Amino acid sequence: MIGAREDDDAAVWKADRGAVVATVDSMVEGIDFRLEWPGLTFRLLGRRLMSVNLSDLAAMGADPGHALISLCLPGSLALRDVTDLYRGISERARQYGCTVAGGDLSGTDGPMVLTAALYGTLPTGRRPLRRSGARAGWALGVTGVLGRAAAGLGLLLAGKSPRTAAERRWVRSQYDPSPRVGAGQTLAESGIRVGGDISDGLYREIERIAGPAGLGATIEADQMPLDRDLRRDRDHAWAGGLMESEDYELVCAAPRAVLDAAQRRLWRTERLTLTIIGTLTPEKGIRIRVDGRLVSIPSLGAGYDHFR
Amino acid sequence: MIGAREDDDAAVWKADRGAVVATVDSMVEGIDFRLEWPGLTFRLLGRRLMSVNLSDLAAMGADPGHALISLCLPGSLALRDVTDLYRGISERARQYGCTVAGGDLSGTDGPMVLTAALYGTLPTGRRPLRRSGARAGWALGVTGVLGRAAAGLGLLLAGKSPRTAAERRWVRSQYDPSPRVGAGQTLAESGIRVGGDISDGLYREIERIAGPAGLGATIEADQMPLDRDLRRDRDHAWAGGLMESEDYELVCAAPRAVLDAAQRRLWRTERLTLTIIGTLTPEKGIRIRVDGRLVSIPSLGAGYDHFR
Repeated sequence: MIGAREDDDAAVWKADRGAVVATVDSMVEGIDFRLEWPGLTFRLLGRRLMSVNLSDLAAMGADPGHALISLCLPGSLALRDVTDLYRGISERARQYGCTVAGGDLSGTDGPMVLTAALYGTLPTGRRPLRRSGARAGWALGVTGVLGRAAAGLGLLLAGKSPRTAAERRWVRSQYDPSPRVGAGQTLAESGIRVGGDISDGLYREIERIAGPAGLGATIEADQMPLDRDLRRDRDHAWAGGLMESEDYELVCAAPRAVLDAAQRRLWRTERLTLTIIGTLTPEKGIRIRVDGRLVSIPSLGAGYDHFR
Repeated sequence: MIGAREDDDAAVWKADRGAVVATVDSMVEGIDFRLEWPGLTFRLLGRRLMSVNLSDLAAMGADPGHALISLCLPGSLALRDVTDLYRGISERARQYGCTVAGGDLSGTDGPMVLTAALYGTLPTGRRPLRRSGARAGWALGVTGVLGRAAAGLGLLLAGKSPRTAAERRWVRSQYDPSPRVGAGQTLAESGIRVGGDISDGLYREIERIAGPAGLGATIEADQMPLDRDLRRDRDHAWAGGLMESEDYELVCAAPRAVLDAAQRRLWRTERLTLTIIGTLTPEKGIRIRVDGRLVSIPSLGAGYDHFR
């Protein structure tokens, strides 16, 4: 193991009051990204590594604090690429008030693995957004615009370079998502208690919120805040693209009046939309209403819970 | 990215008072371990992942608190191996009062990469061991016994299975090191302010302590607490084996009287030896006294400081 430390064996910082919120995520070459994708730079990779982790803090309504970075890189990598990677990491961290406190650098004979562990804070009095606690009849809201990242990934996997303004926007959403840190804080401070990010797909995240409470959901297809250039292909977008979408938006659930107030506040503080897209129902399962007809979405499972 | 979460996007726990100490370390298959090494199990790999990170907290004198785990594993790995890995991680964590708070699981087409980020606390009033602040004339102390892990690694790299009791002891030190968590706390509480772990080698760690203060060190070869079955081959041990030794012991520097008191306290609390092996000198460079003759050790550099 090659050590990469500031000065000591570990990083030290003063504890904040309140609660600690912590997350770790890895990006694996060949699985989460491919170096041959057009326009993908090491700086963008560094930014993305921070963004996916910042999104987990955002999903809890936390303030980002400190990051630890562990990079496993092939020895053949050019120093310039390593520098660009760090540059992307630190510029994205700084942008969201996060300090890169330490890290570890290892050699590897295989694909690159980039890992970040992020620590944030919930100040005393701010309660987190959680997946548990949803009630039937509550409205479901989602921040921002949907479908872009999935459309961008589709282009990249098909080996296409983006040509139109829309295609460039989609690929940018895939490469360089904006974690909704300010939005998460605003939702939590608006009294919303239930929510999560939709990086594993909107429907899966709604299932994770509804399922444990013994509930289901009805989603209104014509309320979905799809990218304007995806609306023409709406059926595709809601049926397929959104299942595995890597949009880094937040979904939340609360009584309608609470969501309405949060909507106004979010627009004021972040210039970001919060769109009501459906309702939690006592009937289990996720259904989408398309042209007046209810279509059931097959269960996606809650994910992999090896740490239980 | 495959999500592996308890219930939410991130883990939450109540902040302790005092200072936070945090570290991250990855183990890469083919670099840090090889699955074909005799007797290496997935449970031992999990234990080792925790131990190398716990050692970083130990080196600061911190109390372990929470761990986040990110595993990049090939899809072909047997479920039983994954379960054994988690078992090793959680049993080692529990042993040192550490809670596995969350994690991430990714697929990979390449070598396994196992990462742990650990988060510990320095209670109000306990100051950390740091690499900076050493003074000329201070004595150097090291915990435990040296040379075993390097001897064990030597056997493994030579493709040999351990046969004698000594060889089994050496391989065990390599596979399943004991992080000196209690020792680090005791050293810090004995008023020692300067120290680190020697997982990157004893001489390198002494250089990291002496160098920034503009100092050097003289080490007494015949004071080194070598494993008894390595003493016959003493010249090899001090010259080569200890340079890159992966012993997870602690080295520290303080006025002689402070070290003497810490020595007694460490034996009382942990039944662990603290051996005085040398002195910090105003002359730069690391020298070893062997049979009355001073031998200079070439500088190893302080490591890779990409995050500066």
